[in-house]
Amino acid sequence: MTTSPDSAVRDFIAEHRPAFLDDLADWLRIPSVSADPGRAGEVRRSAEWLAGKLRATGFPVAEVWETEDGGLPAVFAEWPSGDPAAPTVLVYGHHDVQPAALADGWATEPFEPVVKDGRMFARGAADDKGQVFFHTLGVRAHLAVTGRSAPAVNLKLLVEGEEESGSPHFGALIRAHAERLAADVVIISDTGMWAEDTPTVCTGMRGMVECQIDLAGPGQDIHSGSFGGAVPNPATEAARLVAALHDADRRVAIPGFYDGVVELTARERELFAELPFDESAWLSVAKSRATLGERGFTTLERVWARPTAEVNGIYGGYTGPGGKTIVPSAAHLKLSFRLVAGQDVEKTRQAVAAWVAAQLPAGIRHELTFTGATRPCLTPLDHPALQSVARAMGRAFEQEVRFTREGGSGPAADLQEVLDAPVLFLGISVPSDGWHSVNEKVELDLLAKGVEASAYLWSDLAEHWNTGDRS
Amino acid sequence: MTTSPDSAVRDFIAEHRPAFLDDLADWLRIPSVSADPGRAGEVRRSAEWLAGKLRATGFPVAEVWETEDGGLPAVFAEWPSGDPAAPTVLVYGHHDVQPAALADGWATEPFEPVVKDGRMFARGAADDKGQVFFHTLGVRAHLAVTGRSAPAVNLKLLVEGEEESGSPHFGALIRAHAERLAADVVIISDTGMWAEDTPTVCTGMRGMVECQIDLAGPGQDIHSGSFGGAVPNPATEAARLVAALHDADRRVAIPGFYDGVVELTARERELFAELPFDESAWLSVAKSRATLGERGFTTLERVWARPTAEVNGIYGGYTGPGGKTIVPSAAHLKLSFRLVAGQDVEKTRQAVAAWVAAQLPAGIRHELTFTGATRPCLTPLDHPALQSVARAMGRAFEQEVRFTREGGSGPAADLQEVLDAPVLFLGISVPSDGWHSVNEKVELDLLAKGVEASAYLWSDLAEHWNTGDRS
Repeated sequence: MTTSPDSAVRDFIAEHRPAFLDDLADWLRIPSVSADPGRAGEVRRSAEWLAGKLRATGFPVAEVWETEDGGLPAVFAEWPSGDPAAPTVLVYGHHDVQPAALADGWATEPFEPVVKDGRMFARGAADDKGQVFFHTLGVRAHLAVTGRSAPAVNLKLLVEGEEESGSPHFGALIRAHAERLAADVVIISDTGMWAEDTPTVCTGMRGMVECQIDLAGPGQDIHSGSFGGAVPNPATEAARLVAALHDADRRVAIPGFYDGVVELTARERELFAELPFDESAWLSVAKSRATLGERGFTTLERVWARPTAEVNGIYGGYTGPGGKTIVPSAAHLKLSFRLVAGQDVEKTRQAVAAWVAAQLPAGIRHELTFTGATRPCLTPLDHPALQSVARAMGRAFEQEVRFTREGGSGPAADLQEVLDAPVLFLGISVPSDGWHSVNEKVELDLLAKGVEASAYLWSDLAEHWNTGDRS
Repeated sequence: MTTSPDSAVRDFIAEHRPAFLDDLADWLRIPSVSADPGRAGEVRRSAEWLAGKLRATGFPVAEVWETEDGGLPAVFAEWPSGDPAAPTVLVYGHHDVQPAALADGWATEPFEPVVKDGRMFARGAADDKGQVFFHTLGVRAHLAVTGRSAPAVNLKLLVEGEEESGSPHFGALIRAHAERLAADVVIISDTGMWAEDTPTVCTGMRGMVECQIDLAGPGQDIHSGSFGGAVPNPATEAARLVAALHDADRRVAIPGFYDGVVELTARERELFAELPFDESAWLSVAKSRATLGERGFTTLERVWARPTAEVNGIYGGYTGPGGKTIVPSAAHLKLSFRLVAGQDVEKTRQAVAAWVAAQLPAGIRHELTFTGATRPCLTPLDHPALQSVARAMGRAFEQEVRFTREGGSGPAADLQEVLDAPVLFLGISVPSDGWHSVNEKVELDLLAKGVEASAYLWSDLAEHWNTGDRS
């Protein structure tokens, strides 16, 4: 019995897995938290580490790209196929991570990777360093089993450093480098799949608008006995703003917010309903005791296909031990809005700004700062390049894949627009991986499946591209 | 021309003022913050310092009194008149202070007193160490000008150490020591007057109920993209609670909250309206840009005679730099309710507890902790002992005094109930003194008027007590 290509890929991956995991752990030790200005140097160190590793992998070009206004750097790498007919693929991921600290409740130091029970625990293990990194071993496996010295596609990688901060400079970056980034297909490796035993391919992501609202009342904290009940309290007004975000049906109550929303079709709702969804298991992953959301929609519809308004942080007044009977001088809100296909970032910002201004009483000043924003995107289920991704995943998992959407946000829509290329998703993370949460991890066997899917994908895309099986 | 008694009092005060202010500054250097468990030792040091100073003043008895459950100590002092017909007066004040730190925006270190432009700046300068301390020089002036070796009244002082924490052990303390505290009249020196040029006597204080509400949602912070919009967010629910505190007329919307409230009479509203109230000047002291409160009431009515609900602190989720797209696991509220005559602490707590439980959706757990509580009190305008206080203040200020109420809270009502004695108020603080705020100060000339009024009061009370001019 001869060795099939698939088992050759698996053997190659198994052989190189230990060194691959050691390398990934090295990268995860770099606390590349883009939200924390104090860690800008670590984000840069992460970019330089990755560029070096991509060169060592074989990419002839691997560069650290600066962003506008002193933003955080991205990494670009390129490996031409050598075949003039080969399609060009741009893989997208990010090397920055969410904030994390042991004090938040982590079992182990978030920036000191620990392997336990077949999982690697560290901030960024799944979101997104692990999923960027599987492509490095993937392309080596692809070369090893095909006997090629260069990939079957012109392979490009763009790994940004500000995704967890809302990608403030990403649009400008890809516009500035549009020529070098030019691609026929974009592959996003920053999403997940349904479950360990249910491989899926994602077809779209929600967008996001983030803002901070700073409310100012009294010029300083004042005595709640002497003045309370007679002057506006910014903490009260911050709370009233948040309460006014949703109506009694938990629909977002900002006028104009739902303008343009692409509603779910009856067929899409059916497909969602057919997935093996276990609400109590989902609640367990969500660490939550009950569901709550927009009336008239299921949980999956709420997180995949409906826009939301969420309070990520609220603070104002005295927060120390005991009490302090004051009317606080200020209160602050960090809000994020998830957008779905059809919603526009700028129109959403305008709707939020008009709504905030209309809510506040005289005597409360406010400052509204929009931070990151990401457009929503959605790829049709019948797109041929999506079929290549589905086949590569199907070979890796040895079963037919299903389709999902992603409630999170990424810069997929920007890439789609600027590069005028279809955007596809290849990810192996599972809901229990703890993105943005404590004890983030990646399942090592799934990580190996990601390597394997990556190894198959370039041949499949090249083959079907040349047979005209493309949109 | 012979020296009049009043000018003799003034001369005595002027002579001893420098040493008196030095002593007060020493006391203010002790950061006796009762809300901070880490400063319990400083509260004790403050009590011991005061007891020593009262003995040095001449009080034959000056003791540090422990409170229940390892609470913070009070100081008791006693100086018998020697006259069997003399009435007994208990002066109340407190030696603990609100939290304060330079980082809050103080111009100078809050626990390093600075004298500038006739004012002494320090946490506690007005609330309440300065106003306790004027009695020490007051009784010495009283003795000096009357030639007595003991006060004309049996003078008692009770200076507690937990007033700024809601006096959690004060009720038990005065019940335990009711015999030694027994008095015919209680004088509270923990309030203010209308303005530098408008001396007033306070006739009542608002009560207070304080609580902390801790809301728990997801077991840990979770990704707002993966789960947002489908599970309850405790920060949202905390905000909705706060928003539900008031209706559109800014009346407190908790069912039963207003039960029993003693409404203002038409005559009281007239008297309030006759005070020289300048709203823009009041707003300037309140460091606020507009008034806002219960519809149908003036600003003075709102702060003196109407109950309120106030958010003193709110916090939950990510509060660091930048953004973090999470559904937070928890959110916290620090609320305080001011009560007026007729409202009951226990009934208010029950109303708050029932209301909180009724507001929250499934999936949000809550813990409601009631911390300090203080009853409201009110003394009739025509009470004869109140007339003694008004005369003493009138002599010190050389003009007729007017009457006010106090929006703040103190344990006056407990003293009234346990000692079965009328409660009167003698204070010289002014609204600009910055209680509970940054840059707290006391006006040194007003402090001297307080000394003077204290010097007159004991003779006036003793005289009118024995002429039967009492209730």
